[in-house]
Amino acid sequence: MKLRIPGPTPVPASVLAQMSRPMINHRGPEFAALIAEITEALKRCYRTRSDVLTLTASGTGALEAGVVNFLSPGDRVLGITIGFFGDRIADIAESYGAIVHRLAAEPGNAIDPNAVRDALRRAPDTRAVLVTHNESSTGVTNPLAEIARMVRETDALVIVDAVSSLAGIDVRTDEWGLDVVATASQKAWAAPPGLAMVSVSERAWAAQRIARMPRYYWDLAAAKSWLTRGQTQATPAISIYFALAEALHVLEQEGLDQAIARHTRLGQRARAGACSLGLELLADPSVASNTVTAIRVPVGIDGNAIVSGVRDRFGIELAGGQGSLAGKVFRVGHLGWVTDGDIDEALSAIRDVLAGLGHRLPTTARN
Amino acid sequence: MKLRIPGPTPVPASVLAQMSRPMINHRGPEFAALIAEITEALKRCYRTRSDVLTLTASGTGALEAGVVNFLSPGDRVLGITIGFFGDRIADIAESYGAIVHRLAAEPGNAIDPNAVRDALRRAPDTRAVLVTHNESSTGVTNPLAEIARMVRETDALVIVDAVSSLAGIDVRTDEWGLDVVATASQKAWAAPPGLAMVSVSERAWAAQRIARMPRYYWDLAAAKSWLTRGQTQATPAISIYFALAEALHVLEQEGLDQAIARHTRLGQRARAGACSLGLELLADPSVASNTVTAIRVPVGIDGNAIVSGVRDRFGIELAGGQGSLAGKVFRVGHLGWVTDGDIDEALSAIRDVLAGLGHRLPTTARN
Repeated sequence: MKLRIPGPTPVPASVLAQMSRPMINHRGPEFAALIAEITEALKRCYRTRSDVLTLTASGTGALEAGVVNFLSPGDRVLGITIGFFGDRIADIAESYGAIVHRLAAEPGNAIDPNAVRDALRRAPDTRAVLVTHNESSTGVTNPLAEIARMVRETDALVIVDAVSSLAGIDVRTDEWGLDVVATASQKAWAAPPGLAMVSVSERAWAAQRIARMPRYYWDLAAAKSWLTRGQTQATPAISIYFALAEALHVLEQEGLDQAIARHTRLGQRARAGACSLGLELLADPSVASNTVTAIRVPVGIDGNAIVSGVRDRFGIELAGGQGSLAGKVFRVGHLGWVTDGDIDEALSAIRDVLAGLGHRLPTTARN
Repeated sequence: MKLRIPGPTPVPASVLAQMSRPMINHRGPEFAALIAEITEALKRCYRTRSDVLTLTASGTGALEAGVVNFLSPGDRVLGITIGFFGDRIADIAESYGAIVHRLAAEPGNAIDPNAVRDALRRAPDTRAVLVTHNESSTGVTNPLAEIARMVRETDALVIVDAVSSLAGIDVRTDEWGLDVVATASQKAWAAPPGLAMVSVSERAWAAQRIARMPRYYWDLAAAKSWLTRGQTQATPAISIYFALAEALHVLEQEGLDQAIARHTRLGQRARAGACSLGLELLADPSVASNTVTAIRVPVGIDGNAIVSGVRDRFGIELAGGQGSLAGKVFRVGHLGWVTDGDIDEALSAIRDVLAGLGHRLPTTARN
C-alpha cells in the first residue's frame, strides 16, 4: 500500500531497517548518546535553543503534555480552531478544567490574526492560546507567525500543535516566540509513529512551575530532569528512537530548507492536479497546506467510493473526511518521504476512479 | 549486548523482523484485523473475558490509565507498596488528587494479605487498592490472589500493576476478581517497548462512568469505542502492533502455562546460582520473583563496579538498584525470551567480576 494519508507517512528503507535492531538498555550509555543526538537534531529543526523533550506516545500525547504542564484548572484559554484538531486540543484543555473560549473559522479558512488580537483584548486574563499550525482535517495552514505576534503583545503562552507541519512547513520556534510546540514522529519526520516531541520556552517553564493541572506521565519537568542523565522517566520506545535518529539524518542530508521547499512544491502540484481534474479544494488557496490537500467530493459522487476505489484498484491509501467533514471531502497526504511522482500517481488514480464513478472530467484531463 | 535487565527483554528475531515492515493506514482494514487479533490473544493471556485495551505508551502510561479512569479527586485509596513501582502508582494517584494511604513492607518482603484486610476494615470508604503484582525493584512477587480475595470482601476496586509479571507469572484476571490490570509490551511478552495494555472489568467500567479524574489520551471508554471500529483514538505505534502480534504467536506456540513454568525454572536457577556464589538475595525466598532477582551487593564491593564489569567484560547488561536501593543491590532480569543457558552465562560473568573485585567466593564456586 502506498500511503497518501496525512501520517503515518511512508518511511525510507534506511529508517525502517533501524526498527529491527535488537533492544538496548534504556538506562545505559548507548541510549544516552542516542537521545542526546536526537534532541540536538530536533532543536535544529525546531529552530530553537530551548528544550525539546521526547515522550513515548502519539501526537495527541504531545498535545496533552503541551496543555497540562502549563495551565491550571479554571485558567482562561483561547482555543483557535479551524477543524478537527483545533477542537481536539481545545477538548483536552477542557477535560482538565480550563475555561476555553473557541475562536473558530469555517472549514477551509484560516484564522485572521486580527481576530486573535481582538479576542485577547476582550479577555486580557487569557493564560494561553492554543493554535493548530497545520489543520490536516481541512488542509489549511494558519498564519502562525502573525498569530504569535498578536499573542506576544500579551502575557499569554503560545501553545502550538505543529504535528502535521514541523519538518515539512517552516516553524521558527524562537524567532516567532512560540512557547510550546508539539509534533510526532510519523509526520513529516518520516519515521514510524510512537514518539511525541514538545518544545518548552523559558516563559513556558516559568508557567510550568505554578501550573496545577495534574500530570505524571506527561510531566515535562521530570522529562527534562531525566534527560540530563540521558534517560527517560518511563521505558522509551527504543526502536523508534533508533528510527528517528536515522530519519533526522535523512532529513538533514536533504537539508531542512530544501525539505520545506519540496513540500511547497508537492503542495502546489497536488492542488494544481486536483483542479485540473475539475475538483474543488476545500482550502482557500491563500492558506492551503503544503502537507495535505482536502478535496471536496463532487456532487453526486460517494466519497467513500473514491477512497476505496483508489485503494482497491491502485493500492494507494487516501484519507476520508474527519468529524463533520466525513463524506464531504477526501484528502491526499503529501508530507514526509514523498516525491513529485507519488503525487502524479495518486492524481492519476483519482482521475480514473472518478471517471468510473461518473464524474465529468474536464476535456483536458481525459485520457 | 545481552540484556539481563527486567525489561526491555531480548526480542526474538521473528518479532524484530516485524518491526521493519512498511507503514499501513491505521484507519484501514489491515490495522483493524491486526488490533482485533492482538486483543483476542491478550485476553487469553490475561485469562479474561473482559476488555483489554492497548495504548501507545510505556508501562507507566498503563498505570496512569489504570488510575485516572476509575477514581475521582478526593477518593480514598490504599496503595500497597513494597518498592519503587508500588510508590510510582501511588504517586500517580496522588498527582491526580486521590488520598492515598500507603501500606508498605520492607524491601525484600511481600505484603501480608491480612494487613490488607485490616487496612480496609479501618477505612471502609476505600475506593480502590493499588497493588504491584511483581515488584521488579526488589525481586518480590506479592500474593495477588490472596490480596484480591481480601479486597473482594469490600466494594473497592483491585487495580494491578502486572507490568513485570503478566505472561511470565500467572495472572488470573477473572478468577481472582482483578478489576484493572496493566502491563507493557517490553516485558515478558518479549516485544519492543511502546505499547501499554490495560484490562477493565465490568465493575471497573461502572466506576469509570462516575470517575472524575481528568483524562483524554488515557480515556479507556474512548479506546473501547474506537476499538469497536478497529481503530485507536490517536495514531498507534503500528510497528509495535506488528511485533506484538508475532510475539503473541511465539508465546502461544510455547503455551502460556509452559512459558510460566519456564519462568519458574529460570527464577529458581538464578536464585540458586546467586546463592552458590555466596551472595545474598534481597527477597524473602517464599516470595521471590520468577522474572527478576535482586542480589545484595556484598559488603566492601562497589555495586556499580559489578554492573559495569559485567557489561564491559562480558557484554551482559545487568540492572542496578532503583530509588533507595541504588548501590545496595544489583538485579538480574530473567523475563521474556530467556533460556537456562542465559542465566548460567550471566552468573558465570558475575562470578568472574566479583572475584576480580575481591569478593571471597565459596570453595565450591571457584574455578
